[in-house]
Amino acid sequence: MSLLTIGTVAFDDIETPFGKAGRIIGGAATYISWSASYFTNDIKLVSVIGDDFPDSELQKLKDRGVNMEGLQIKEGEKSFFWAGRYHTDMNGRDTLDTQLNVLADFDPVLPESCKNVDYVMLGNLTPQVQMRVIDQLESRPKLIALDTMNFWMDVALDDLLAVIKKIDVLIINDEEARQLSGEYSLVVAAEKIIEMGPKILVIKKGEHGALLFHGENIFFAPALPLRTVFDPTGAGDTFAGGFMGYIAKTGDTSFEGMKKAIIAGSAMASFCVEKFGIQRLTEINGNTITKRIGKFEQLVRFDTVL
Amino acid sequence: MSLLTIGTVAFDDIETPFGKAGRIIGGAATYISWSASYFTNDIKLVSVIGDDFPDSELQKLKDRGVNMEGLQIKEGEKSFFWAGRYHTDMNGRDTLDTQLNVLADFDPVLPESCKNVDYVMLGNLTPQVQMRVIDQLESRPKLIALDTMNFWMDVALDDLLAVIKKIDVLIINDEEARQLSGEYSLVVAAEKIIEMGPKILVIKKGEHGALLFHGENIFFAPALPLRTVFDPTGAGDTFAGGFMGYIAKTGDTSFEGMKKAIIAGSAMASFCVEKFGIQRLTEINGNTITKRIGKFEQLVRFDTVL
Repeated sequence: MSLLTIGTVAFDDIETPFGKAGRIIGGAATYISWSASYFTNDIKLVSVIGDDFPDSELQKLKDRGVNMEGLQIKEGEKSFFWAGRYHTDMNGRDTLDTQLNVLADFDPVLPESCKNVDYVMLGNLTPQVQMRVIDQLESRPKLIALDTMNFWMDVALDDLLAVIKKIDVLIINDEEARQLSGEYSLVVAAEKIIEMGPKILVIKKGEHGALLFHGENIFFAPALPLRTVFDPTGAGDTFAGGFMGYIAKTGDTSFEGMKKAIIAGSAMASFCVEKFGIQRLTEINGNTITKRIGKFEQLVRFDTVL
Repeated sequence: MSLLTIGTVAFDDIETPFGKAGRIIGGAATYISWSASYFTNDIKLVSVIGDDFPDSELQKLKDRGVNMEGLQIKEGEKSFFWAGRYHTDMNGRDTLDTQLNVLADFDPVLPESCKNVDYVMLGNLTPQVQMRVIDQLESRPKLIALDTMNFWMDVALDDLLAVIKKIDVLIINDEEARQLSGEYSLVVAAEKIIEMGPKILVIKKGEHGALLFHGENIFFAPALPLRTVFDPTGAGDTFAGGFMGYIAKTGDTSFEGMKKAIIAGSAMASFCVEKFGIQRLTEINGNTITKRIGKFEQLVRFDTVL
């Protein structure tokens, strides 16, 4: 089934304790599309780039079945650029530079092929832009998921709350869940956030796994304990892409179905952090993914205790 | 099967964002014994107290099957006392007062009934005191587990390394594992620590669950997402008590058996934090524990993904 995604397609400069990578391909929609493409080949990408973006990179995504009709290319302008440096423990990072460029006045225009889709993944962007996408949909998708960040809670909370009302699944990290709800306990935070609109909440906890709140039900997904986290950039987007890609593949939005989607997303994120940027995501295949998902199953399986 | 435990039996003053509790019953051996007593009724406690400790509290433990022959009562002296205040997020705490009292010159003397046991849980104490217990054992137990803390890594590292060589299972938290190994990645930290002696390593991550490293195998146990963590004091000891109590019950030290022991320990810890001190541990029963363990099973179970 079809999956529409919106988010940045961009360049990143990344510095981690393991090294530096300059002007590599990044952006939320890039990670989401790469990750989802291992589960569904009917992906539609909506974004904006300048004329500085390499055709070869776009072609790689097209080769994975990504429809680019919704990708605007602005002649004479530059693509979005972000530079960041991770701390030694990889849990914190400093933004060294942000150049909005084409993103400054991005108005997403959905081509006809994108107006009737089964699933939507709204990557992290201005809430108004996320809303603009929802407004252009001609039929209600089966599921709309949204990612956001603290920054929008600080500067555009009303817009964020408005768009959150329209979606089904909110995907944020623990710090963001606490800020949005004003609650420290993630259980209480989840209750408050679900009252804001989304029926389902996914809280990403990085190396500590992820929590799925689905009605009264809670699922706790592990993160794979890794020898090395080489570059965490895009791990959250890769998780979201795997999650929504898996749902687009199975069409199962029940609690049981979403648990499996969380594991699929976690497995994809565990690949993402193994190399700089999207590199590792371009190297894997169905076999490596199957094996990795098997590792997750081994990691948490236990027999009946009593 | 029999379980010998050593650790403090003490008074605590505790301050959390939810309130204060003065001069309540605490100490590692107290929590370990209460927790383990729900799985085995052949527990032997070795510790030291002053003459200020209420008989009624000792009687409650005796009623749960705890053999107190190894508990020294020092006339005219005071029991160990600790006072601490938890931060708002419950993840950090400040020690406000520590009065060693009887602990200052504690020399554990094992009565005959304690010299031949199946399992040993060495609660957090000076490594020399932990070693003194091992030295007095007449036969090698099936399994010796040890808990310790950063403080001993700072002030008695050589003694700690010596006792760690003699044990089978080391139970520490993530921060302690990182300090002991000098490695940030818990996977690499586990490899280094296992080279120090213990075949098995349990890393407690508080609200993020626990990891079991058993040879080449890794198991990730969740923590139960709770609405409120009322008082985290003793949660780690309660976890260790449930873990070793379960093993003493089943006699199963295989990887599969230890996974289940980790879940049992996690379930017990999830009770501990619901009220001040040991209060909640004195109220539960087999039924409430069975239900709680069922919650853990629900929390992580998922069908085959691919």
